[in-house]
This record gives sequence, structure tokens and C-alpha cells, in this order.
Amino acid sequence: MTSLRNVAIVGGATTKFGMRPATWSELCQEAGASLFRAVPNLDAGEVDSLFVGAAEPERFAFQSHVAPMAAELLGIRPTRIIQRTELACASGQSAIRSAYAAIAAGLSDVAVAVGVEKMNLPSMAEANTAMACVLDRAWDGVHGATAPPFFAMVAQRHMLEYGTTEAQMAAVSEKNHRFANANPTAQFHEKSFDRAKLARLPMIAPPLRLGDCSSMTDGAAAVVLVAEEKTRKYTDTPAWVRGTGQYSDFHNLANAGSLTDWGGLRLAGREAMRRAGIKPADLDFAEIHDCFSISEIVEYEALGFCAKGEGGRFAEEGRSDLGGQVVVNPRGGLLGCGHPLGATGVAQAVEVYQQFAQEVAPARQVPDPAWALVHNLSGSANVHSVMVYQRGG
Amino acid sequence: MTSLRNVAIVGGATTKFGMRPATWSELCQEAGASLFRAVPNLDAGEVDSLFVGAAEPERFAFQSHVAPMAAELLGIRPTRIIQRTELACASGQSAIRSAYAAIAAGLSDVAVAVGVEKMNLPSMAEANTAMACVLDRAWDGVHGATAPPFFAMVAQRHMLEYGTTEAQMAAVSEKNHRFANANPTAQFHEKSFDRAKLARLPMIAPPLRLGDCSSMTDGAAAVVLVAEEKTRKYTDTPAWVRGTGQYSDFHNLANAGSLTDWGGLRLAGREAMRRAGIKPADLDFAEIHDCFSISEIVEYEALGFCAKGEGGRFAEEGRSDLGGQVVVNPRGGLLGCGHPLGATGVAQAVEVYQQFAQEVAPARQVPDPAWALVHNLSGSANVHSVMVYQRGG
Repeated sequence: MTSLRNVAIVGGATTKFGMRPATWSELCQEAGASLFRAVPNLDAGEVDSLFVGAAEPERFAFQSHVAPMAAELLGIRPTRIIQRTELACASGQSAIRSAYAAIAAGLSDVAVAVGVEKMNLPSMAEANTAMACVLDRAWDGVHGATAPPFFAMVAQRHMLEYGTTEAQMAAVSEKNHRFANANPTAQFHEKSFDRAKLARLPMIAPPLRLGDCSSMTDGAAAVVLVAEEKTRKYTDTPAWVRGTGQYSDFHNLANAGSLTDWGGLRLAGREAMRRAGIKPADLDFAEIHDCFSISEIVEYEALGFCAKGEGGRFAEEGRSDLGGQVVVNPRGGLLGCGHPLGATGVAQAVEVYQQFAQEVAPARQVPDPAWALVHNLSGSANVHSVMVYQRGG
Repeated sequence: MTSLRNVAIVGGATTKFGMRPATWSELCQEAGASLFRAVPNLDAGEVDSLFVGAAEPERFAFQSHVAPMAAELLGIRPTRIIQRTELACASGQSAIRSAYAAIAAGLSDVAVAVGVEKMNLPSMAEANTAMACVLDRAWDGVHGATAPPFFAMVAQRHMLEYGTTEAQMAAVSEKNHRFANANPTAQFHEKSFDRAKLARLPMIAPPLRLGDCSSMTDGAAAVVLVAEEKTRKYTDTPAWVRGTGQYSDFHNLANAGSLTDWGGLRLAGREAMRRAGIKPADLDFAEIHDCFSISEIVEYEALGFCAKGEGGRFAEEGRSDLGGQVVVNPRGGLLGCGHPLGATGVAQAVEVYQQFAQEVAPARQVPDPAWALVHNLSGSANVHSVMVYQRGG
């Protein structure tokens, strides 16, 4: 009987996120080239497995079977496991979780997880149509239920139940855009992104204005995960995978429970922290899924950073900022970086590695971090995916 | 340090395959209901993880994020892992491999893998367009490279290099259709499917006639995998996962090597058998990917059932039939059962379980089987996926 092995991320890289004049393949190749530059001791011939996180290449890029395409573009020939994982907006973290399980189980020694999405198309009507099938198209999509109106309902309800304000939501967006200004790969570098400017931006779905929404973004990111005995070859600061949790609640919106109490995240977060042996207070920072400003507020509550209903104040009082209780989204979040679906979860993991290695710009560097949590939601917040990392070295 | 755990399939079920007046969701639900009937001691509340193998629901069913949809349709709420796996025609086996890795690593105890594909659409032009993006669309699809012409080139080359005949290819199709006649879930039940009839069927891509080709099929299948200590609750004949191997060679056809020497399958097969500690001669039967009759012939050679170039004779002499050296595709194969992409790999695993349990019709029951191999290829045979199972009990 072999023993279960510890697994760590030993390096990663992210393309520039944005409206990129580049194809799906070009973004993938760019992330791969950046990965091999970022991890100079990584030899393509050592990579035995490849996990590709991509939400909808079939519709955005009219290409299926993207895993071998990515292998070819990265110049690797997987000899153990190759697959694409899909979980809509959490497809990237799914790729990382699969790599983790494969290495822990002894099926892989050196695995790459790459997340890619090309969302800006010549016809944005085509892109928006693709987004409409992330929710249950036959039951909900046909009634106009896409992400912005769904999360607008969450915001309206949170304001009604807890007195959350537009200014509190703007505080989330302002913080994340400020961090994005210090992240060269972020989509948005808005020097004057303050709350007053946010309040003047167009209304998308009341009460969510443009600045409360993440965007349709092109981008890719890649990380390499290895078994414990191999980490030293690649890095002095491995990011150990210590816990994972997921919860799937419902799909059809008719089966949803409370809009403001994301019980699935509470359970997934608890499971991931239980496996890691930590409590929320042990976390130094968290990369969580701010697809909309209200999402981050609800997530503070579900992850136990604050009490239910206190999320708005938590943001407003700077408790999720540098110097606060737990730094949230120092990468710039989905609001500041953009949200190329399959790439987001991998880019969050790149941030964890780089924060642990203390490689990021001072304006967003968490001081001496030891523990980090990463969260993705997908669909109508009906599925929650969480991982917990510990700095090694 | 926890120890790696043994994993077994403890039950499974397949919907009727064919041109089904049913949606993607209805096929998924039907497979789930059949699974819970087939494994009466399985309680929905025990299933902690769900892996959904689906190739192209985004194009065939205009639905993404299908994993939580499947969870809802099956009546389960995954608390550990939920994801869809995609590897085109091997998406189903990818779901099973992911479940295996998750359980072996201690991340899951009871996992369901379900494979679903709905391929017959009101507009078959739409369906064929979807199939055109399985190969590299920008490089190869635009030149008309889809599966039938690609495998026709393989057949032409195999005939040229080794003297393989149309009659030998027909022998594969005849055998698999005969087995399909004894499988109630198969798409085709052709009572008079002999070689003479095959030779009169329409030519699809020379030398492949209609009977040499698997079909566009609707169907779904589901299996449940559990950790070693849980098997006895569900079955007396667990199908133990003993080995796995994959190999990804190329994507763009310009980078392909020999059309008739599937080196990737040779390597993936060796890896899976090495992990299982067996040789090809130890196998009692094999479910391998006969998307076209020529595929099965090339696969005999790559898996080491016979020497290179001998595959045609191997079929013609009945060495892959009941009473032969190794029984190949007793389920009826893709030729006889149809090929609903994501469902095929899971249905093959259902067959392994049922053969081990000696539950199938006498006309296709392998006598007292102990070892089985399952193979899927995907794309232009550029990726090969293999698993090896041992009967327990």
C-alpha cells in the first residue's frame, strides 16, 4: 500500500487579462510560455499530466477536445492523465483539484493545470448567448436569468434584509480596483476608481452599476503542481494544498433557497478548513469570487469572516483590506482583473503562490502570509468550490 | 499520513441507446433512476461526489455547467467534489478516472460517474457541425477532416501496408453486431447482420461502409465507485480498478505520426497493465473503442493482442470472439451499441461490472472472467485512455 502524498504548487504565471487580440490557442500558448519562464527548472518532458480548465470553448472558440490542443500548444506529451474539467466559472479550480487528487493518489508526479477563456468575440451577441446557458437554460435562461439579474436580486434582498448599502458594495469594488492597479496582468488599471466615480457609472441591473460587475475577459493562467519529494527542485516556497471542499445545492432556480444565505459556501468552506485543520481567523488572505461586489459581501458572511448581515460593514470598515482582519482579493479580484471563466481559478492560485513567495508589488503584498483560502462559485452561486493553502519553506 | 485506498465499481446501469425522443436532462435522469434500481443499497444521501462525462452539451444541448444539473436530476447533493470532465469521445472514462483518483486520495468515499450525450437533433447539420470541432477545427476541420474521412485514411493505409481486407473489417462489425443483439440497451438489433449484407451497405468514406461506422446516438450510463471498506454493502462482485494509463500525442493532424501505428495506445495500455501487474495474455475480455471497424483492428495490434499488421486476421479467425484468445467488445461495441460520446466510456464500465457479476445474456457472457481492459480513444486517435479492472469477491 502506497501512502497518500502531499502536493504543492511550485510556480505559476498569468497572461495579461483583457480584451485581447488573440485566439483561445494563442492565450493558452502564452500562458504556457510564461509558466516555463516562471519555473525555470521545469522541463516539458517531466510533465506527466495536464488538466485544462475551460468553461465554454465549444461556444466561445468553436473548439472541443481542448485538452490535447493545450498539450500540443504547451509542448508537453502527457503520459499519465489528460483531461479538461468544466464547472462554468469554477472550471479553473476544478483543474487544480483534479491535479491535486491525481498526485495525492500516486497517479501523477508533475502536473500542469492551465485555465483558458476567450470571451470577447466579433459578435458579443454570440458571447452573451453562450453565457445564457450557464444557468439552467430551458427553465431559467429563457426567462432572462443570466448572471447580472440574478446577483442584482441577491443585492436587493441583502439590502432589504440587512440594510446593506450601495456605498458598502462600492467599497468592495474600490478596494479590488486599487489592488488591480498594482497587478500588471489585471484588465483594469483605473487610477481614479473611487466611490464617487462608481456612483456615476451606468446602471446594469439595479442596484448593480458597471463597477459592481466583473467583465467578459480574455485570459489564461497556468500552475505546476508536484508531489512532496519533488518540490525542492522548483522552489523554496511551495504552496501546499491543505484542504478542499465543494458543495452543489441546486440548478433550477425554482429549487434555490435563501438568496442571501449561501449555505453551500458555508459547508464547502468548513470542509476545506476542517481538512486543513484551521479556522477562519487563521487565514492571512483569501482570493474569493467577487463576480459582483455583492458576492464578496455575502461570501465574508458564509466563510465566517463576520456575522450574517455584517458583510457590508466589514467591507466599509476596511476589515478585508491590507491591515484588516483578513486581506481579501489582493490580486484585484474578478472586479479588477476581469473574469475569463476558466482562467480565474488558476490565476487565483498563481496569486497564492506569488503572495507566499512575496513576489508581488508592495501595494498588494500581504505581510508574511502563512495561510490562504481560494473560493470560486459557479452558475447562480449554486455550486461553491474552496481550497486552502499553506506556505512551505 | 493516510494510506492510498483501493477503489471498486459496485454497480451501474445504462439507458437504452438509440435515436431517443428525450432531452439531455431526461437521458441523465433515466440513467440515474436505473442506477439506483440496479444498486438497491445505494442511498442518495451517501453519494458525496459526482463526475459527469459529457463531450459537447454546449453545442448538442445548448447547456453548460451540466454537473450541478446532473446532480439535481439524480437527486444528490455532492458535498466533496463535483465536476464535469471532457475528453471528447473519452469523456466518460475521464469521469471514472477522476472518481477513482478522488476516492484513492481520500477526498471521496462514494462517487457516481455519469456519462450523457444527446446527439440526434432536429437539425443534423447542427449536430455534424458540433462534431467538426472535435478535431482541430481551425487547421483540420476547415479542410473537411472529421472522423469518417480520418479513419478511412487509417483503413486505406492499413490495407496498403498489411494487406488488410474489407472482409476482415466486416468480421469486426459482424461480431460486434451479433453481441449487440444480446444486449437490450444496444442501439442496433440487426438479426441478419452478416458480411454479405455489410458489403451491400452504402459507402461512407472509402473503404468504410455504413456498417463499419459507429453512429450518432443518444444515451446515458452511470456507475458508482466506492472505497474498499464500503464495497460489501453494495455487491459481492466488486470490479476493482487496478490500472490506468493515458497518452496524448498531438492535436493538429500535421503533427501526427504513422496512421497505422497507434504508439499512444501502446504506451497507455502498457502503463495501465504495468500498474495492474498483468500482461495482455491475462485479459479475459476487453471493451475497446471500435468507433470504426478498422479502429478495433489497429487496437488489437497496439494493445499487444497480436503482432503489428496481424489485426485483420485476428478478427477473421475469431480470436477476438467468444472462445478466442481474448473476447473483444462483448457489449456490442460502439458499432453495435451506438456511440453517445460521453456515455460510451461509462457504459463500457457498466459492462465490465455486469460481466464480472455474470449478469449478461449467455450469448455474450465471457466465461468466468477475472481481468478486463477498457479503452477509449478520442479525436483523431491522438489521445488514448485505458483502464484495467479485476473481479473481486
